[in-house]
Amino acid sequence: MIRINENYLSLKGRYLFKSIADKVAEFKVKNGDNGLIALGIGDVSLPLAPTVAAAFSAAAKGMGVTEGFHGYAPYFGYDFLREAIASTYSARGADINTDEIFISDGAKCDIANLTDIFGKSDVLIPSPAYPAYIDVNVMCGNTIKRLELSEDDGFVPHPDSGDKNARIIYLCSPNNPTGVVYSASILREWVGYALGTGSLIVFDGAYSEYITTGEPHSIYEIAGAKNCAIEICSLSKCAGFTGVRCGWCVVPKSLKVGGANLNALWQRRQSTKFNGVSYPVQVAAAAALSEQGKKECKKQIDYYLENAKLLCDVCKKCGIICYGGVSSPYVWVKCPKGYTDLTFFDLLLEKARIICTPGSGFGCDGGFIRLTAFNLRSATVTAAKRLEKIFCR
Amino acid sequence: MIRINENYLSLKGRYLFKSIADKVAEFKVKNGDNGLIALGIGDVSLPLAPTVAAAFSAAAKGMGVTEGFHGYAPYFGYDFLREAIASTYSARGADINTDEIFISDGAKCDIANLTDIFGKSDVLIPSPAYPAYIDVNVMCGNTIKRLELSEDDGFVPHPDSGDKNARIIYLCSPNNPTGVVYSASILREWVGYALGTGSLIVFDGAYSEYITTGEPHSIYEIAGAKNCAIEICSLSKCAGFTGVRCGWCVVPKSLKVGGANLNALWQRRQSTKFNGVSYPVQVAAAAALSEQGKKECKKQIDYYLENAKLLCDVCKKCGIICYGGVSSPYVWVKCPKGYTDLTFFDLLLEKARIICTPGSGFGCDGGFIRLTAFNLRSATVTAAKRLEKIFCR
Repeated sequence: MIRINENYLSLKGRYLFKSIADKVAEFKVKNGDNGLIALGIGDVSLPLAPTVAAAFSAAAKGMGVTEGFHGYAPYFGYDFLREAIASTYSARGADINTDEIFISDGAKCDIANLTDIFGKSDVLIPSPAYPAYIDVNVMCGNTIKRLELSEDDGFVPHPDSGDKNARIIYLCSPNNPTGVVYSASILREWVGYALGTGSLIVFDGAYSEYITTGEPHSIYEIAGAKNCAIEICSLSKCAGFTGVRCGWCVVPKSLKVGGANLNALWQRRQSTKFNGVSYPVQVAAAAALSEQGKKECKKQIDYYLENAKLLCDVCKKCGIICYGGVSSPYVWVKCPKGYTDLTFFDLLLEKARIICTPGSGFGCDGGFIRLTAFNLRSATVTAAKRLEKIFCR
Repeated sequence: MIRINENYLSLKGRYLFKSIADKVAEFKVKNGDNGLIALGIGDVSLPLAPTVAAAFSAAAKGMGVTEGFHGYAPYFGYDFLREAIASTYSARGADINTDEIFISDGAKCDIANLTDIFGKSDVLIPSPAYPAYIDVNVMCGNTIKRLELSEDDGFVPHPDSGDKNARIIYLCSPNNPTGVVYSASILREWVGYALGTGSLIVFDGAYSEYITTGEPHSIYEIAGAKNCAIEICSLSKCAGFTGVRCGWCVVPKSLKVGGANLNALWQRRQSTKFNGVSYPVQVAAAAALSEQGKKECKKQIDYYLENAKLLCDVCKKCGIICYGGVSSPYVWVKCPKGYTDLTFFDLLLEKARIICTPGSGFGCDGGFIRLTAFNLRSATVTAAKRLEKIFCR
């Protein structure tokens, strides 16, 4: 017989995002979209850096001639890119071999596909969190425990020392959606806990290049992490690759669950179910990691960080509490008294013509909304002015 | 607790392909690789067609400027590409809507990822077949029944009318590895059988553009197929996209298993676990499907078909039985008396310096080897001459 994956039926509907889209559409019908500013988006606004775009287009052009044509890419990525990534780790004191690095078409795919090498498992997911963590684990029937993050702790997660169960633990720093960056001491706490309980950390470092305040960029800067952590990274937000699609996943060779070697399992998964990333895309990725590429991408990151600062500053000025926005493109804004995330969303839309993301979209109760720094400077400046006009009286 | 996916432990090792690689490496050490001709490869040799490469590089270059930059692509593909594909179906009399077409990074990924929307199911896989069909179903614990294809039937599969069990049935035409193309009447037989048993056909049309002899290119040219078939297609072999990565999957809205709508499940899968295909890649794909692109790609296909004919012709001349090679890039060669696929592999390597793929790599017993037409003309001509010299006496 044929069965469908019944776990799909347990997925929550996307009513919130649908209802946001509906509200925005309705607003546009009434008011036009003149002046509407999207601060809900996770997509970047700046084009690819010159060095990256040049490398990308040259390699794409080369695909049209015998000397430049490249057929099937190696399943795990070209050595030139794996080596460039290994060097980046090495520069941070993390010892990662090229054969522990797997090139992919993005962090979201890796987060999803990783579940494939596991059987039914217990997972621990902070709340709030990037919604895909929940969805992909629901889809494979894993048992999910939420770790409620509290404003009292500044939305920093701490392990529950009473819980000795081995779990797959999702950590993201700088965090989406809170923008909070985890210190080395917090990460040490988690690595110690994972090693003690036989847990596995899935560390999402998609925003690591936004860190300017000294915290670790990689979980592997913490001693012992190679025995308990997988790391997922992406060029989407640090090099504008949302529409190019390239990321990577680190699965250390020392990682084991039971007797099984996770690096070997991931090799088998990727070589069977994936067919590599386009050569021109990998050339573009390597360009982004070159010295000149890094310089140009850093300028873009600084641009978005300045946007984040503008948003933080206006919140502070108006007495609105917010988190993140430093070393992070996300600002996590506490709704003023009397508002839920949904009513505050309505207020921002109607009074400031700003689109945000209600916090309940990240699975937590509704006292916060998320603003992003990914819009253009001019739009962000205008948004900040509008917020000031409405809330700073 | 954390469990690994125990199904991975049931995967067969890749000893055959490892042992082939070892033999070739050993041969090279002894003899150098001078004159070694790879007719085992599934990768193409010709660069991208001019129209395709130009579109690809222009779009990649555009990513470096505001007007040309594209961030996250729509999960299911840009409308311009989905519409181009829908038109291709329409031109063949198959009525496929754009919202039934899902753009992906290739057929292999789609074949693999499709298993995600199903629970434990019964599947039927012809033997021989593309190895991924088996592997991805082993990886999710499905119950696999093989349908042994027989030389007496010309390697054409027929449904077993006694088997009333609903299964997921894998069909590939033109077939990999046999090169055999299925007639409309064979496909009608399968569609009727699927509708009668509640089975689902996964139709792999990766080589459909090689058909020059009138057989259906798509399963949807058969009445009723929209109620029982998913189709997976790729630009890898018909437009040289092995290293570009773009394909598509058709999941008709009328397809149901139990009460569940498969189109809706696949939407959920792709929007949660996939993040779209790069804009320049989709532009390149649309260029390949344009009138001029089709002309240029047809020239490449004809080139490979001529290679296939050269290989078929020399086999016939030497009294070696072979299948495929017409309307297909694959030639399925019967080993001469006294040889197994492995000893025939050795003979071809040592006497003709030709690398083939032993048939047992496709899961069938070892009386055949596969030659491919994807090498360059000059190499293929040389290979044919060597075969003639050795076998035509």
